[in-house]
Amino acid sequence: MHETTLTARTIYEGRVVRLEVLDVELADGRRSVREIVRHAPAVAVLPRLPNGDFLLVRQYRKAVEAVVVELCAGLREPGEAPEAAARRELLEETGRTATRLRHLGRVLASPGYTDEWIDLFLADCEEAARPADLDADEQLELLRLRPDELRQALRENTIRDGKTLAAWALAELRGWLDAGGL
Amino acid sequence: MHETTLTARTIYEGRVVRLEVLDVELADGRRSVREIVRHAPAVAVLPRLPNGDFLLVRQYRKAVEAVVVELCAGLREPGEAPEAAARRELLEETGRTATRLRHLGRVLASPGYTDEWIDLFLADCEEAARPADLDADEQLELLRLRPDELRQALRENTIRDGKTLAAWALAELRGWLDAGGL
Repeated sequence: MHETTLTARTIYEGRVVRLEVLDVELADGRRSVREIVRHAPAVAVLPRLPNGDFLLVRQYRKAVEAVVVELCAGLREPGEAPEAAARRELLEETGRTATRLRHLGRVLASPGYTDEWIDLFLADCEEAARPADLDADEQLELLRLRPDELRQALRENTIRDGKTLAAWALAELRGWLDAGGL
Repeated sequence: MHETTLTARTIYEGRVVRLEVLDVELADGRRSVREIVRHAPAVAVLPRLPNGDFLLVRQYRKAVEAVVVELCAGLREPGEAPEAAARRELLEETGRTATRLRHLGRVLASPGYTDEWIDLFLADCEEAARPADLDADEQLELLRLRPDELRQALRENTIRDGKTLAAWALAELRGWLDAGGL
């Protein structure tokens, strides 16, 4: 299974995405066009406080014109390792330092058209927070949920962010949701 | 929390994606640029056979230059309801008809830059299959996994597709993974 690139055109190169259109040859010789969104690798963190509560982030997402509740997340900077990016985003968005940071896994956001990878982490944090240090165009609020409230919001689909559900699945499958904060 | 659109430019309109660049005003009056990928709404289905085995799809994904194991999935056609699209994709890709189709939820693929919604379903299917009926540029193989094999592949992060993990999380949270196939 493979698709050979015949020609590639870069349509747009922006701050967050680069759009490419590829002419490809399929394994059986037929041809097709693939529209591909290149995106920097991302990290996303599920922070847990000493009493077991989780922190999530509420922010306005222009792409869907709605406030979305999701993991603390951001893009890796050039040369930055996933764990370092996770610690940086955690501190910037929640003011917290992780006492223990565990890698949950790496997921593809939507492999039909984007190369975006997201490294997911579970971060056990201290209760005490420093002031958040957001990017100039970021505006967000923290949401604190007990474990049963998080489960209910995911089950009832009021939290609708895919990476947040993926992180919960990986933490559940690894048995890390039952272990408490410390 | 809101961001007001000041100007919007369509950079590219393709078969699968439309790229827009928006100048926005944030709630505090500052300005920023949002690069947004418009994408048709999608559906994705986790098919389960009468003996409890799950079916997944292996296909080459040009965006990541790799074979990806994921749910049976596709785009909704104009005017097509999510459930109808799920039944159509299930039949096209796996040759199966659902005896019971349950909506797991609706998730955002990556709300930082795309408006893609994915409606997720759990489909209990008959064992017997008709031949697959793929789109001209689709090439895929079916992968049959026992429930413990699916859990292991997700836990070990060898299945890395975000929507597949999200569907598993929703099915687990709703208690639908234990109920057997019928």
